[in-house]
Amino acid sequence: MALIVQKFGGSSLADVAKIRHAAERVLAERERGNDVVVVVSAMGGQTDQLVEMAEALHESPPDREMDQLLATGEQITISLMAMALQQRGYGARSFTGGQVAVHTDDVHTKARILDIDRENLRVVLDGGGIPVVAGFQGVAPDGSITTLGRGGSDTTAVALAAALEADECHIYTDVDGVYTTDPRIVADARRLDQITFEEMIELASLGAKVLQIRAVEFAGKYNVPVRVRSTFGEGEGTLITVEEEAMEKALVSGIAHNEDEAKITIIGVPDRPGIAHAVVGAVAKANVNVDMIIQNQGEHGKTDFTFTVPRADYKQVMEMLDPVCKDIEAEALTGSDRIAKISVVGVGMRNHAGVADRMFEALSNEGVNIQMIATSEIKVSVVVDQKYTELAVRALHEAFELDKPVDERDHIH
Amino acid sequence: MALIVQKFGGSSLADVAKIRHAAERVLAERERGNDVVVVVSAMGGQTDQLVEMAEALHESPPDREMDQLLATGEQITISLMAMALQQRGYGARSFTGGQVAVHTDDVHTKARILDIDRENLRVVLDGGGIPVVAGFQGVAPDGSITTLGRGGSDTTAVALAAALEADECHIYTDVDGVYTTDPRIVADARRLDQITFEEMIELASLGAKVLQIRAVEFAGKYNVPVRVRSTFGEGEGTLITVEEEAMEKALVSGIAHNEDEAKITIIGVPDRPGIAHAVVGAVAKANVNVDMIIQNQGEHGKTDFTFTVPRADYKQVMEMLDPVCKDIEAEALTGSDRIAKISVVGVGMRNHAGVADRMFEALSNEGVNIQMIATSEIKVSVVVDQKYTELAVRALHEAFELDKPVDERDHIH
Repeated sequence: MALIVQKFGGSSLADVAKIRHAAERVLAERERGNDVVVVVSAMGGQTDQLVEMAEALHESPPDREMDQLLATGEQITISLMAMALQQRGYGARSFTGGQVAVHTDDVHTKARILDIDRENLRVVLDGGGIPVVAGFQGVAPDGSITTLGRGGSDTTAVALAAALEADECHIYTDVDGVYTTDPRIVADARRLDQITFEEMIELASLGAKVLQIRAVEFAGKYNVPVRVRSTFGEGEGTLITVEEEAMEKALVSGIAHNEDEAKITIIGVPDRPGIAHAVVGAVAKANVNVDMIIQNQGEHGKTDFTFTVPRADYKQVMEMLDPVCKDIEAEALTGSDRIAKISVVGVGMRNHAGVADRMFEALSNEGVNIQMIATSEIKVSVVVDQKYTELAVRALHEAFELDKPVDERDHIH
Repeated sequence: MALIVQKFGGSSLADVAKIRHAAERVLAERERGNDVVVVVSAMGGQTDQLVEMAEALHESPPDREMDQLLATGEQITISLMAMALQQRGYGARSFTGGQVAVHTDDVHTKARILDIDRENLRVVLDGGGIPVVAGFQGVAPDGSITTLGRGGSDTTAVALAAALEADECHIYTDVDGVYTTDPRIVADARRLDQITFEEMIELASLGAKVLQIRAVEFAGKYNVPVRVRSTFGEGEGTLITVEEEAMEKALVSGIAHNEDEAKITIIGVPDRPGIAHAVVGAVAKANVNVDMIIQNQGEHGKTDFTFTVPRADYKQVMEMLDPVCKDIEAEALTGSDRIAKISVVGVGMRNHAGVADRMFEALSNEGVNIQMIATSEIKVSVVVDQKYTELAVRALHEAFELDKPVDERDHIH
């Protein structure tokens, strides 16, 4: 008998019919003889309504009160889910984050989980019942309700699975797994049966919006196998787990794309120590995340310095850097928020320089100009003009033969 | 500087504009130099939506989960109200029942307050802030959320006022005070400036839906002056307080009516000890409240036994009593859910038998047949056919001259 944590997102709980359907998923797992802990998000749409009211009453709603407000969303779904399970004759019991308790720090709206009490959930499990836990929320040391930020319910599910030493954590969503790339762009994208935590982190952070990155990091750290599967369809979904001998040895697992960034270039910077710090430090101080950073070796004692930031912060950063550029005696400040980052990801590429080469060749064949390049152990990312997103993704999917099973693909030298 | 507890009901908080308006009421009290603790109900309409979803998922939603679900209603309004106050520059902080903490027993959906912690609220008050507390809810010994049942927010407000030794508890609602009778029935009903706790208890329990009876009992027990006033209008409302020399000495304060009950009669019961216990005990065991109970002295060793129950429980009780009637060898079981209870209330009637007489005369003059009579120290109630409700209320309001100031009324001998 295994212990499974099942997490249902807002689109899987958008109305009572869907809640009833999700409850059937829980019962099916029980009927396979497994113990289940259920984690739920707020009903789809509910959060937006609450935020709208808050913004009508306060120009910048205070974080503590926002958490108090938004936490009602999951409190509604836990009780409704517990009712649906009890109606089917199962001893279900709902828990808010505070009732579990999921202890967090006191950084409202983006709290971090510090510790989870197992006792209350264990009592229900030992009595043959099904605990239904509110995702996304916890309790601060002073008893205030906290929330974990965007996608926090995934993190709750994985953290609970780790705390309870569950055998698997199932994330039910409206897609049936992780694909070799966005199926809306490439029709013959393949669903992956397995993927490693590292690959999933790259794919998640690069724009494959299946699973929240903090949840995957948590899963990797505590070695919790996570399965992404569809609430409404059939199939086993995609298992995210540690690299194993038995895994299919794909050189490249998938192609990710991200259109949420903007590129900023400082041209003609004097090539001396402290420049990168002056620029990135100013951006970091404004709490803006910097993603890719590239500095080319300069000629005549000058260099160009390019980095990417979230697109929403583009204008603010450009304005903020104007005086900084004067200070460091740069020649010009340019940028674009019409870019896309395209990435090839795979643990198999660790020892294969050929991957980057095949990537550049495929893009070149399609006339796609590469503006920036960044690499890590298991990925190669390029920045291109946003108009090339679909073209680039399709060309790379084809170049790496991701539509084919692994053993039918060409070998890269 | 006084401490005032202000409570706003659901109709005063039905949308963001109304919440903003209620916040202005709070600030006006602060600007008079008083400390304020705010208690709020759920937004009007919200509770019904939640109940509807619960009933779609469970044929008889379990009480603990129902409390968990419904408590979200006030959690939404406390945070929104705190935001509205903070927007105006005041240090407001929201509290759920559990965060206060309002300790209750574990009788879900109709819990009783056992104790209230003052510390968390005191810290906010001492810091010059405004605590905003969720009405209607508390926390059971095991950490589960409880609710206090219908109108429980009034009880929360009065209990907080008692715990904090507040000077007055203001109940803001959509009427501007307590009237001599329902103004929708009698156009010249008068608003009372003052009324005693005892009178208010009779009026509340008899159907004047201004204030929840448990709240008034609580207020009387701890001697908390309660003022009922309008959220949207002006005026001082009605002050509910202990009887004082200075109060207007009305013989009769008001006429109440109640159409929420049903009448059940067991005919031809053998007149022997234990019958009342057999019947009322069976009803009480099903957690149904019995209000009026009447047993006439029987002839030939038989008697008729009549009592009233909430109309919603009528069918259930009739079915339940069928076997009981056989057991006690009663001749028949009859009843009606088309009845109204009309009551004349006033502390001044304590020593005046004439009040009952004038009541019966006024009803007789209008041809209204009296089905049951019950009296207490400060009220006389009759049950009549529901079709006579308006006629009876108008006739009694006129007979006791309640449209006139007290000193212009006829004297009753």
